[in-house]
Amino acid sequence: MNSVRMDNISWLEYEQRVKAGSVVFLPCGATEQHGPHLPLGTDALLASAICEDAAREVGGVVAPAISYGYKSQPRSGGGQHFCGTTSVDGATLSGMIRDAVREFHRHGVRRLVIVVGHFENQWFVTEGIELAMRDIGDNSGMEVMRVEHWEFCRKETLDAIFPDGFPGIALEHAAVIETSMMLHYHPQLVSLESIPEHGPAKFPTYDMYPARTAWVPSSGVLSSAKDSSSEKGRLLVTDVVDGIATAVRQEFGLPGHVHVTSLQPQVVD
Amino acid sequence: MNSVRMDNISWLEYEQRVKAGSVVFLPCGATEQHGPHLPLGTDALLASAICEDAAREVGGVVAPAISYGYKSQPRSGGGQHFCGTTSVDGATLSGMIRDAVREFHRHGVRRLVIVVGHFENQWFVTEGIELAMRDIGDNSGMEVMRVEHWEFCRKETLDAIFPDGFPGIALEHAAVIETSMMLHYHPQLVSLESIPEHGPAKFPTYDMYPARTAWVPSSGVLSSAKDSSSEKGRLLVTDVVDGIATAVRQEFGLPGHVHVTSLQPQVVD
Amino acid sequence: MNSVRMDNISWLEYEQRVKAGSVVFLPCGATEQHGPHLPLGTDALLASAICEDAAREVGGVVAPAISYGYKSQPRSGGGQHFCGTTSVDGATLSGMIRDAVREFHRHGVRRLVIVVGHFENQWFVTEGIELAMRDIGDNSGMEVMRVEHWEFCRKETLDAIFPDGFPGIALEHAAVIETSMMLHYHPQLVSLESIPEHGPAKFPTYDMYPARTAWVPSSGVLSSAKDSSSEKGRLLVTDVVDGIATAVRQEFGLPGHVHVTSLQPQVVD
Amino acid sequence: MNSVRMDNISWLEYEQRVKAGSVVFLPCGATEQHGPHLPLGTDALLASAICEDAAREVGGVVAPAISYGYKSQPRSGGGQHFCGTTSVDGATLSGMIRDAVREFHRHGVRRLVIVVGHFENQWFVTEGIELAMRDIGDNSGMEVMRVEHWEFCRKETLDAIFPDGFPGIALEHAAVIETSMMLHYHPQLVSLESIPEHGPAKFPTYDMYPARTAWVPSSGVLSSAKDSSSEKGRLLVTDVVDGIATAVRQEFGLPGHVHVTSLQPQVVD
Amino acid sequence: MNSVRMDNISWLEYEQRVKAGSVVFLPCGATEQHGPHLPLGTDALLASAICEDAAREVGGVVAPAISYGYKSQPRSGGGQHFCGTTSVDGATLSGMIRDAVREFHRHGVRRLVIVVGHFENQWFVTEGIELAMRDIGDNSGMEVMRVEHWEFCRKETLDAIFPDGFPGIALEHAAVIETSMMLHYHPQLVSLESIPEHGPAKFPTYDMYPARTAWVPSSGVLSSAKDSSSEKGRLLVTDVVDGIATAVRQEFGLPGHVHVTSLQPQVVD
Amino acid sequence: MNSVRMDNISWLEYEQRVKAGSVVFLPCGATEQHGPHLPLGTDALLASAICEDAAREVGGVVAPAISYGYKSQPRSGGGQHFCGTTSVDGATLSGMIRDAVREFHRHGVRRLVIVVGHFENQWFVTEGIELAMRDIGDNSGMEVMRVEHWEFCRKETLDAIFPDGFPGIALEHAAVIETSMMLHYHPQLVSLESIPEHGPAKFPTYDMYPARTAWVPSSGVLSSAKDSSSEKGRLLVTDVVDGIATAVRQEFGLPGHVHVTSLQPQVVD
Repeated sequence: MNSVRMDNISWLEYEQRVKAGSVVFLPCGATEQHGPHLPLGTDALLASAICEDAAREVGGVVAPAISYGYKSQPRSGGGQHFCGTTSVDGATLSGMIRDAVREFHRHGVRRLVIVVGHFENQWFVTEGIELAMRDIGDNSGMEVMRVEHWEFCRKETLDAIFPDGFPGIALEHAAVIETSMMLHYHPQLVSLESIPEHGPAKFPTYDMYPARTAWVPSSGVLSSAKDSSSEKGRLLVTDVVDGIATAVRQEFGLPGHVHVTSLQPQVVD
Repeated sequence: MNSVRMDNISWLEYEQRVKAGSVVFLPCGATEQHGPHLPLGTDALLASAICEDAAREVGGVVAPAISYGYKSQPRSGGGQHFCGTTSVDGATLSGMIRDAVREFHRHGVRRLVIVVGHFENQWFVTEGIELAMRDIGDNSGMEVMRVEHWEFCRKETLDAIFPDGFPGIALEHAAVIETSMMLHYHPQLVSLESIPEHGPAKFPTYDMYPARTAWVPSSGVLSSAKDSSSEKGRLLVTDVVDGIATAVRQEFGLPGHVHVTSLQPQVVD
Repeated sequence: MNSVRMDNISWLEYEQRVKAGSVVFLPCGATEQHGPHLPLGTDALLASAICEDAAREVGGVVAPAISYGYKSQPRSGGGQHFCGTTSVDGATLSGMIRDAVREFHRHGVRRLVIVVGHFENQWFVTEGIELAMRDIGDNSGMEVMRVEHWEFCRKETLDAIFPDGFPGIALEHAAVIETSMMLHYHPQLVSLESIPEHGPAKFPTYDMYPARTAWVPSSGVLSSAKDSSSEKGRLLVTDVVDGIATAVRQEFGLPGHVHVTSLQPQVVD
Repeated sequence: MNSVRMDNISWLEYEQRVKAGSVVFLPCGATEQHGPHLPLGTDALLASAICEDAAREVGGVVAPAISYGYKSQPRSGGGQHFCGTTSVDGATLSGMIRDAVREFHRHGVRRLVIVVGHFENQWFVTEGIELAMRDIGDNSGMEVMRVEHWEFCRKETLDAIFPDGFPGIALEHAAVIETSMMLHYHPQLVSLESIPEHGPAKFPTYDMYPARTAWVPSSGVLSSAKDSSSEKGRLLVTDVVDGIATAVRQEFGLPGHVHVTSLQPQVVD
Repeated sequence: MNSVRMDNISWLEYEQRVKAGSVVFLPCGATEQHGPHLPLGTDALLASAICEDAAREVGGVVAPAISYGYKSQPRSGGGQHFCGTTSVDGATLSGMIRDAVREFHRHGVRRLVIVVGHFENQWFVTEGIELAMRDIGDNSGMEVMRVEHWEFCRKETLDAIFPDGFPGIALEHAAVIETSMMLHYHPQLVSLESIPEHGPAKFPTYDMYPARTAWVPSSGVLSSAKDSSSEKGRLLVTDVVDGIATAVRQEFGLPGHVHVTSLQPQVVD
Repeated sequence: MNSVRMDNISWLEYEQRVKAGSVVFLPCGATEQHGPHLPLGTDALLASAICEDAAREVGGVVAPAISYGYKSQPRSGGGQHFCGTTSVDGATLSGMIRDAVREFHRHGVRRLVIVVGHFENQWFVTEGIELAMRDIGDNSGMEVMRVEHWEFCRKETLDAIFPDGFPGIALEHAAVIETSMMLHYHPQLVSLESIPEHGPAKFPTYDMYPARTAWVPSSGVLSSAKDSSSEKGRLLVTDVVDGIATAVRQEFGLPGHVHVTSLQPQVVD
């Protein structure tokens, strides 16, 4: 039994934690091709594992993952033409998030963190939160934090991991960051010998519809995962979990956070 | 690694199975109070476990569960006033199913089984399938089976398990069937000592809105789970998994099914 | 002039009754094949007639019927492949109910009874009520009762009418209950000589999409209506009307109801 | 039994007529205040009665009326502040019509006439038809006629009935045309002695939201119904029924229509 | 710089005006064929120009036009079969208006005028306003006026401009009124030599779907624009701008309006 | 008359160009605060001007701008708490785009470019295109390009304009790029003396709901616009217009494009 998971505990246990002010984490992933070496569930698996680690740090609870995400785009996830990629309409995802936020509010939750693990989800998750907050009304006390977990990878870590320069998060699909994190959390689901050899995808600065599938490597991998390692995964995950825990403590005023006088949020460098 | 789970395999492995004609199973659960002794994730956990067992029997693949279901009703799930019950609007659930069915069709899947593990889901899952089939169009060859897993419990088994008579599936919320199945699949998530003592709930034949919460036992359990056992769970699960596998073989014409001349579907007794 | 019908009275007369606390009844039927012997409007006609009888007992008003229901399913209504069955999407029916409930609330109505006369409507009517109640807000004083009328048939009556055992309500489509009730209320619309001879339909415990039309008798009748009679109709209707009236008096605290101390709702046997 | 009504006949009888090419009529009314002298159901009652008369002339079938219409506006129906007026959102009405048109098409119907009996319905009915036709696709052969029944009142008749000049159809709410038609079709539902004495409402050329209820006579009647009579009703109804029957014969090429060489539709004078 | 246009001023300037009680005008046009002599943007261009003139008179601000309107109908705009006509679904237009009204309310605007410049928009704009007002809630103080600008053309002006009688506003599509107004506001966009020679369109009193395109002149012009002139445009525009300004002053109680004791709104003649 | 604008030309002229294969450009902007020195219409004004320049280069036509965009977010547009920012729901924007794409397809347009001028629009525009393409169906020949115009600013230009390093596009809201472009296209709408003095905003890597308005400079400007100039605007606009024209020629195979053998799209550096 994993007592940090909401689906593993009874409603009475959950209610007790909510009354004690626990933060609820909602992982929001996808079912999407991640190359020949990573499983289709990578985005939800990573978002869930990161949520669990962060929840342990701040005494939180992790709700069941949303396992189907917004439509994969060629420049960030390879696109919808891959077999196995199973995506939902924008309105479906926004509705899912809206309903969940409303329900957590009804439970008495006032500190909710939605951890996005699939690049294409961000804006439809945002809309879902916006719709819920409008329904809930002002002065409800409900606060929601939305994070894309990779945004907490520190510059120092990225510099160390990418000595030739970080290619940018969009091209990181099924590449070093995700593969290393999976090697850290779920090594048995990674097939290192299946990592394709080809170089990074090159994309123009725009999108075409129908998707120009010729732009996308047939493997579904957007840049090399060759240099992935469990150790790199550990470094990256540590950044992300620490970053989320720090943000949570600061924004929700939890104990363990030294509240500084002047506003000094974790800034984008 | 659990190779029957879609989220554990790569898109290439999945594609290979789809091309070979594998049946895809989609578990459709809920996050809902299940009394003091069962976890909030019971419906999705059971639907997933049953799907995995059935998939193993017929060479199928199990897609990630839909973990949030339609609103709990007092007479079948205790109602929406319980903390922890986290439900979605009907249109959200139908949209989720519609999108998923459309995507499986795009993958080339032609044999899809949706296993409903939450009583209140049935009609919104039905609508989701209907909407998808309309979009997909006639002559697509796509076939979807929708099952409520408990419907495969055989009369003989129920008679054995309920010597005083089966109270009906609606009252079985968090009771003997679900508790026994959980003892079979996830014993570490069942807290036998927390099973409440009270007798079965008594409901009128209609519903009131707002819900009359006084009708519902404050434990959330609708009838006694005292007589649950892992052995009963094994019997029930065997019925259900065999029933689904038999239905799948028959309806999809899979090998292993002795196709009889006259129509003799598994009938309602 | 039928002064119990809302569409037959002026808004001033209606307003007066609403101010006096009258219960409003909303019949919710369908346009659906009911075999060769019953008319397409059976579900709306029965729901309306029952509402009128119940309204007369408790001093209520009957709103115009919703005449188009949710999609017919093979195991309960024969399915959508029949000519004449005219159904709406789930969202349309839920929207219709949501809008109506909101409007009755605006009128000042606080006691609304929705009488479902079509099996497939139940959950979309439920969602419509849920959506309206959310919009109306807590503390509005609005109370809605949702009933499926056949649920009030007493065990004694069913035992008398079905000496060989009651086949269950789903199979009762266009069978003894509906035919007898129609013989009671609208005998001129029943063609006894057209009742088909075949035995009851046999269905598996699951549904297939597209519908397996071979499962459904080509008549559209799911079990024999041969033993129907006007007298049986009278007995059944009496159960139903009395049951609704009793429930209404109890739940809405109307005069004529002896309010007992301990909760003793009309229970499911 | 009224064999022109779809809800009074069996699906087999209906199917036979559809196969024979019968025109289907769908009345689209409202539940709306119509002054102290007319019932709330006036719009649906009139649309239904007119449909039945027209169907008898051209061998058609009348589907059950849609009894709830779009929101009443002050300048044409008095507005939404009246008790008893029970209206739906635009999307609900359009969805209802879309679903119904789709279903009639599935039945094999290729000639559908939607008779609008409530001024405010027109554009949402139009959108419902447009949405259905898009779904049905080109080359389906399905043809839909949408009529507002009052548009068929001939200039000669209006001149005779309104010797002081016709005030325009919007102001005719609950006035001479509707009252006379009701005296023709449903005299027992008209309370002549309740017709209010006041003169016609005076409205500006624009609308205000929230509605300026002071603009609307508190009776709900927009211009005098004092000069109504059953005989006027007969004249008006004759115009309308003949007009619809003529239009139907011409547009759908039915027998009884002398097809002229040059296009000469019934024009607006 | 045109300081009456919201899109030309900064948010600080806009905020200042809103705080001072300025009226906001929202033009709601279309992109629709207007014959060979008028541009596709006619409806939005006219609505915007009229809004600017009216705003100057009452110290208002003009929001950016909504440039895409509801589907063109044969009898009022020629229909959807013309190339260039670019229309939206009813729900899209209503959603657009709903969202805009909600946002102006959030800004602190309490006096909003929506000027409809496309006949087919009226009811979907109405629904958009109704939806927003429901969301905003009672007692918000928000007031919205919806005008179709041509409704302010005075009878005297129409009599002068149409000595042979006014054919009615629907047939005025791309005809004398619109052409003259465009000659007044945007003469460089009018191609007088391209005005077609044919007489007025003749339509029946109903609509057919799919549209009977043979009913519509292939030019897209519904009645002659030959007698258009810039001077007529000036007269018409003066009526409309004065009418709107007068209505705004009266309804919103602005200075410059002589408030008369008895209600005497500008009435429909 | 500006003959590159669709709203300035007649439908016959437009039809001729569409038949000749003209590319249609659809600018998609917003009404959003842009600091004290830029107008609320900046995003739509820039997107429109860029579309017109690009259309002139490739012989295209510019459709009327969509002037209302998705909700402003603190880290990219300051957020929804500013007066004047007038945004729509995600579904409204997606619906607007979906409808427009469908209509252009009906016109016979096969080459459509949507130019996004508001950061927050990107994903809802994407969904609108995806929805339209699904409706239009495969093999329609319709191709849509979606560009965010700033993505075409070349590295060399950004290096020259930002000698201290480019702060990233999100922080560029109402800053040097937009201000310089506006100085190039609409100098009379820029108030240089109103540019605020404060340094760049500092944001964490996540978002909070309700928005932490204290994170956002009260001016609405996210980084300094002090160094803006018309000359910089010219350089930036030249990059963007050339970039779009080149992309259009390449992707749509227009004359003037030297088609190279190996795929060498304009890559992200």
